[in-house]
Amino acid sequence: MIIVGEKINTSLKGVSEAIRARDVDFITNLAKAQEEMGADYIDVNCASLLEENEEIEGMKWLVKTVQNAVELPLCIDSPDAKVLEIGLELHRKDLRPLINSTTYERERFDQILPLIKKYNAGIIALTIDDEHGISSDAQVRTTIGIKMIEEMVENGIAVSDIYIDPLIQPVSSNTKIGNVALNTISGIKEKFNEVHFMCGLSNVSYDLPKRALLNRTYMSLCIMAGLDGAIMDPKNSEMRKVIYAAELLTDKDKHCKKYLGAFRKGLLE
Amino acid sequence: MIIVGEKINTSLKGVSEAIRARDVDFITNLAKAQEEMGADYIDVNCASLLEENEEIEGMKWLVKTVQNAVELPLCIDSPDAKVLEIGLELHRKDLRPLINSTTYERERFDQILPLIKKYNAGIIALTIDDEHGISSDAQVRTTIGIKMIEEMVENGIAVSDIYIDPLIQPVSSNTKIGNVALNTISGIKEKFNEVHFMCGLSNVSYDLPKRALLNRTYMSLCIMAGLDGAIMDPKNSEMRKVIYAAELLTDKDKHCKKYLGAFRKGLLE
Repeated sequence: MIIVGEKINTSLKGVSEAIRARDVDFITNLAKAQEEMGADYIDVNCASLLEENEEIEGMKWLVKTVQNAVELPLCIDSPDAKVLEIGLELHRKDLRPLINSTTYERERFDQILPLIKKYNAGIIALTIDDEHGISSDAQVRTTIGIKMIEEMVENGIAVSDIYIDPLIQPVSSNTKIGNVALNTISGIKEKFNEVHFMCGLSNVSYDLPKRALLNRTYMSLCIMAGLDGAIMDPKNSEMRKVIYAAELLTDKDKHCKKYLGAFRKGLLE
Repeated sequence: MIIVGEKINTSLKGVSEAIRARDVDFITNLAKAQEEMGADYIDVNCASLLEENEEIEGMKWLVKTVQNAVELPLCIDSPDAKVLEIGLELHRKDLRPLINSTTYERERFDQILPLIKKYNAGIIALTIDDEHGISSDAQVRTTIGIKMIEEMVENGIAVSDIYIDPLIQPVSSNTKIGNVALNTISGIKEKFNEVHFMCGLSNVSYDLPKRALLNRTYMSLCIMAGLDGAIMDPKNSEMRKVIYAAELLTDKDKHCKKYLGAFRKGLLE
């Protein structure tokens, strides 16, 4: 499982204030804690700093600060392509960043596509296009994902640098929607075995009680469908236990090596 | 989820002694506790009382004792067709028992098939035949299951009275084996949407640490594949939480009714 640590995001408590105050210790600690818990990437998002110039300056400071704190690549996260490029420009060149994210909406896609190659990045790509928006039909989402991958590959991007986000939505408003994301993952995986998947899962439990139970159960189902990446809190120990278990049970952990290693480190307690 | 309470089994601690001593209170309490926790059937198994006559007399006493204790149908469980018939003969006629179990091995199958019709029972059927034994190939297991269902249907048994057991085996000795049972379930379900599945899950975690974590995670994966029945301890509250969550997430709980009902009863704590 490729884990993107989600904690440096201005939508989370205390982070906006820390970025505005340029609080190096606060951000350093958030980054280091995620690295220690096994994050593969650190997401940096300051999109809720609403004025554009503020987001740009925030991103510059964040990229520098987090790179000083940890030896991990970053997941540069913004709705604004300009902010993405500024973050990518400042990223260490000996590590490969992730771009978070594009859709297959033509305007967005055409802005982001050149950045992927220019900055030798991975790309998180949401199964949304201009015609369908966020479809509730797994077949439509699958087709959007496949077409998007094909266009990226035609433009010289490796399949293994693409991280499809199947769009996790709340089952509280539509109980069919859990299967839609699962079938989108398995449908795209069937066509492109090398592609990665990456998403946040907590949306699935929105407006329901005992959200952590639903989130970690959904994680196991997504792993069975083919999910191999998640934007999550790396300190979520119950979630990590389920990841170890589900990967073993679906033959992604040869000789039970990762599961037994986690057990010996006390991570399954 | 159709739950068969597994606790009245002479392989479990104290049960042999209780049956030998004809301890009505012990067995009554075990049966009632499972009924209260939502069991749909109570399994009765005294196969480890090794002398045949002892098993026969044990089964007679068990069926009467458990039926006096609870208003549930029984799952009559024995490797010996003679013992099965004795249990079925004594079963209440206003409730429909389950037979545990047959394989598609010709001798066994031919012994059990007449009992299913004669006693108007459901049948747990393991995907084993004479040619392959317990195959490690999901396609072989699927084919055995499909042929067995077809032969039962030709003999007048309803598909919805058949509970296929996909044979859960330990991933510790072969990490591929988790997927084998999952693919057997989904393969047979694709062909016969009305068929049920029924199995014990705890084998999957044999010889590994933190077995309960593996067992409940595997439950969620099996539910995604199509499992709708389990032989388990109905008092296993962590397992039940995962069942509620996984059924909601895979669209088997319209309007979140069962999940929210369980929450209100405190079953998700």
